[in-house]
Amino acid sequence: MDPNIVMQPEAAVEESLEKIFGWIGEKKYFKVRDELLKYNEADIAEMFEEMLEDPGILESTVVIYRLLPKDISVEVFSYLPSDDQLKIVDGITDAELSYIVQELDFDDKIDILEELPANLVDKILEKTPKDERRLINTFLNYPDTCAGSLMTPDYISLQKEMTVAEAMAYIKKEGMDAETIYTCYVKDTGRKLIGIVSLSTLVVSDDNLKIMDIMHTDYVWINVYEDQEEVAEQFKKYGFLAIPVVDNEHRLVGIITVDDILEVIEEENTEDIERMAGIIDWEDSDKEYLDMSVWQHAINRLPWLLILMVAYIFTGMIITSFEAKLSEIICLVAYMPMLMGTGGNTGSQAATLIIRGLAMDEVEPSDALRILWKEVRIGAVIGLILSVFNFVRVCWFDGNGPMIALTVCCAMLFIVIFAKILGSMIPLLVKKVNLDPALIANPAISSISDAVALSIYFAMAAIFLGL
Amino acid sequence: MDPNIVMQPEAAVEESLEKIFGWIGEKKYFKVRDELLKYNEADIAEMFEEMLEDPGILESTVVIYRLLPKDISVEVFSYLPSDDQLKIVDGITDAELSYIVQELDFDDKIDILEELPANLVDKILEKTPKDERRLINTFLNYPDTCAGSLMTPDYISLQKEMTVAEAMAYIKKEGMDAETIYTCYVKDTGRKLIGIVSLSTLVVSDDNLKIMDIMHTDYVWINVYEDQEEVAEQFKKYGFLAIPVVDNEHRLVGIITVDDILEVIEEENTEDIERMAGIIDWEDSDKEYLDMSVWQHAINRLPWLLILMVAYIFTGMIITSFEAKLSEIICLVAYMPMLMGTGGNTGSQAATLIIRGLAMDEVEPSDALRILWKEVRIGAVIGLILSVFNFVRVCWFDGNGPMIALTVCCAMLFIVIFAKILGSMIPLLVKKVNLDPALIANPAISSISDAVALSIYFAMAAIFLGL
Repeated sequence: MDPNIVMQPEAAVEESLEKIFGWIGEKKYFKVRDELLKYNEADIAEMFEEMLEDPGILESTVVIYRLLPKDISVEVFSYLPSDDQLKIVDGITDAELSYIVQELDFDDKIDILEELPANLVDKILEKTPKDERRLINTFLNYPDTCAGSLMTPDYISLQKEMTVAEAMAYIKKEGMDAETIYTCYVKDTGRKLIGIVSLSTLVVSDDNLKIMDIMHTDYVWINVYEDQEEVAEQFKKYGFLAIPVVDNEHRLVGIITVDDILEVIEEENTEDIERMAGIIDWEDSDKEYLDMSVWQHAINRLPWLLILMVAYIFTGMIITSFEAKLSEIICLVAYMPMLMGTGGNTGSQAATLIIRGLAMDEVEPSDALRILWKEVRIGAVIGLILSVFNFVRVCWFDGNGPMIALTVCCAMLFIVIFAKILGSMIPLLVKKVNLDPALIANPAISSISDAVALSIYFAMAAIFLGL
Repeated sequence: MDPNIVMQPEAAVEESLEKIFGWIGEKKYFKVRDELLKYNEADIAEMFEEMLEDPGILESTVVIYRLLPKDISVEVFSYLPSDDQLKIVDGITDAELSYIVQELDFDDKIDILEELPANLVDKILEKTPKDERRLINTFLNYPDTCAGSLMTPDYISLQKEMTVAEAMAYIKKEGMDAETIYTCYVKDTGRKLIGIVSLSTLVVSDDNLKIMDIMHTDYVWINVYEDQEEVAEQFKKYGFLAIPVVDNEHRLVGIITVDDILEVIEEENTEDIERMAGIIDWEDSDKEYLDMSVWQHAINRLPWLLILMVAYIFTGMIITSFEAKLSEIICLVAYMPMLMGTGGNTGSQAATLIIRGLAMDEVEPSDALRILWKEVRIGAVIGLILSVFNFVRVCWFDGNGPMIALTVCCAMLFIVIFAKILGSMIPLLVKKVNLDPALIANPAISSISDAVALSIYFAMAAIFLGL
């Protein structure tokens, strides 16, 4: 087998896409379909994402989607982000939509039903068997970021009296529809979860053993209302492939599989990163950047900027109160951006490390003293090095006197140390009162440190220059 | 079954830890051991992490570790972060260390050998069978962040002529040592990978079918030197449990399982977040915040601060050139921090969204024009709202004249728009030349926007105040 024949899809996708866009222009839709069918469903979905980005060919793209074999079209649909799914939904018939929704895995089905308008959901549910309809309605009612919204009811459940051989036969029969057959769940007659057994245990166990003799009873479980971030923590800690989800009566209501957790981890990281930059996602949406309107973007970004406006009133007041003295030695103004900027940046560095450390469970509020002592020393090292650099700059490069250099350098040293203290302690404080430390965004820390920086600078000027 | 009996470990861990710290003070080590053994290995490891944090009880902690049953001690060891592993290694005998290393899963074994000093590694390898020694040496030579460093050679490999029944019997025999039995790999006589077959396919397939008839040949694979970020991308895209790793001749050399990928995703996210805050992890270490020395922290944070010092020389020059005029209307100085700060913050917001969007494959450099147009409009909306706010502030609150208010407000509008443009375009540019956009950290963007902000401000002052 020539290794060159085994080509990774990504390499080929770009090439195919170019051809496809050409064919769409010529309306050769069947050619496009045949080209797409050379790939697996995940790659086809990726190519549809590219095509759906261009509103000019939306109609053609939907036509091509409808030309796909039915089973493949369902798979492709499940790989698409929800925004693109809705674009497809708008272009297909109700019957086609109904078919897709029926065929989707249960968790994907719930995801798309959550996005669809209510009248469409009702239409689809009309054609759904009563039992499943009830189940769907239960699932639709779980809040968007809790364990219940991530789980699927498609799991293998075994009886504790079964033998290994019986269990294997059962799995062989039922396995095709289950989300995973690698962990099987043992329930009592009251639907309460009493144990789990992995397929690998089943495979290597003697055929005549009873399930209750080989099942684990000290398994980890998740309550259906647990936050998804906590669910991700459990997966990271234990390295499971799936975790059972139970209700308040410890009845098994579903399972969560690891592949759905990768997405949750990225979502949570995105949320943290955005919050740290002072962006608040009000709608808690997983919409992509380009799919959000100008207004949504503005509304997400404005609150912190407005809050900081108020903070800057104080910065302004500090300067105004020093105005008369400042105009005596106007060259001091030239160093203000540097001192404030450095304070802000160095404070953000400390804050970022602490916020991330808190999220990764590497530090906690009780470490405050150790962190404080560390940051003070780090601040001193950095402050001293930057001060030396600046002494040279102020005296030689700018040609200002040594007393001005001394003012700038001492201010720099103290500003860096104070910024490090502020940047590291504020997130710990916020965590201590059980808020998300990422919410006290870096912009807030830099504006507080701006005010501190100015005060220190003017105090140094008073000491060294007698202002 | 009373749901109250089924208690999640975390809830109990805290309580037990308190007891344990008490017993350590009284040197009741056996009591500590018995308390620990109530938990599973992942939880025991978590408790050891807490104990190892206190250097005052390090010796006691190691004694307790040595009291654990051998099999459990190995498992606990594998769950510990590498820094804590080294603390344990320092306290145990060479024989004990040798035992632990032999018993670890292959990928954990490689991880700890990479951290140990060379003479210890040699000592351990002396006692290792020749075949495994050669394998270990190969694995130790893969660069730290490539696919090779994540993989394990413990996988199930099948022959294409086997029947399903033969394969299942083989798995039953060999399965215990494999990292996962859920995906099995089919190799030809030249060790080249020719197909994969999942255990679920085996379980639901007819016993007499041949492996070659049910195996997938259009599987996805990873080259052994591929970067780990790319590996994580593949897992996210396809939702696999394991991916085969091949060398340049397409020979199967190992597999990577999804549980090791969760960690990689978090590592990559941490790296991005730190880089965006202007922190460079020179040693590419996964050391925790508290385990890093003051010097390491300072060295990671200094480079950007020093580079920005140079940038601030330009900001200073802009102010100096405007100094004489500035001293005429000294009240303009009071608004400088606000204008520069808002420019920096709003630029960082745009940069953060674009950098994250690039990392998540949601935007790409070819979207530049669409992004530019979107950010200009967002900037206009935000700039106008902030301007109105400021007009009121400058006129009524500060009691300055309308021309000064006009200067500040027009400057604000243009600064926000320019900062949005800078913040969104610079990451795209950096990506275009194939560098990591996160490396052009937010501090850089805010210092560039500082200079732009001042220039705009002074230009507005020249227009409206005739300076």
